[in-house]
Amino acid sequence: MNFEEFKNCGLRRSLDILSGKWKPLILHNLFEDDQVRFAELWRTMPRVSKKVLSEQLKQLEEDLIIERIEVYNFPPEVYYKLTEKGRKLGPILLELHSWGSGLG
Amino acid sequence: MNFEEFKNCGLRRSLDILSGKWKPLILHNLFEDDQVRFAELWRTMPRVSKKVLSEQLKQLEEDLIIERIEVYNFPPEVYYKLTEKGRKLGPILLELHSWGSGLG
Repeated sequence: MNFEEFKNCGLRRSLDILSGKWKPLILHNLFEDDQVRFAELWRTMPRVSKKVLSEQLKQLEEDLIIERIEVYNFPPEVYYKLTEKGRKLGPILLELHSWGSGLG
Repeated sequence: MNFEEFKNCGLRRSLDILSGKWKPLILHNLFEDDQVRFAELWRTMPRVSKKVLSEQLKQLEEDLIIERIEVYNFPPEVYYKLTEKGRKLGPILLELHSWGSGLG
């Protein structure tokens, strides 16, 4: 496999997208609840700073795994939800979860 | 999910183990050939330094995903191969590969 092939390798791109300390927990929360507000996410995630959480949400959004929905109430509200592409990750993440849980 | 649960979450541990720029390509090579020598691995992996390749092999070994086999010839030879635990990753990595390839 040359470097060009490596850069476009599906496995490498997937792992790249999923790399980030808090992304497993963000995805875990978005699979549990259809739409989640930033403040709710931040409250359920122990020890993450708002800055880091925003960055990792931004990356997932740019990678088209989640989408950001603005609701123009007063005050305005921002929700995050999985895209269709993000939803397709569900079964794979479950398998990775059970493989990782079996590591003892 | 509290921080203790998060630390032991199977998905987080899996992604932690798989995180590392060259690990997808190392695993790709080990799934293709049963046993691979360091020099062969290094030659097939464009642009990786021997130091970085050794480090990522060491991590995979410590995580019990691969094993290191020494053959006492002259000169002595070192091979790497997947453990049983590592082999179980195969189907999941294939799914991640196809999901990532479908990202366009």
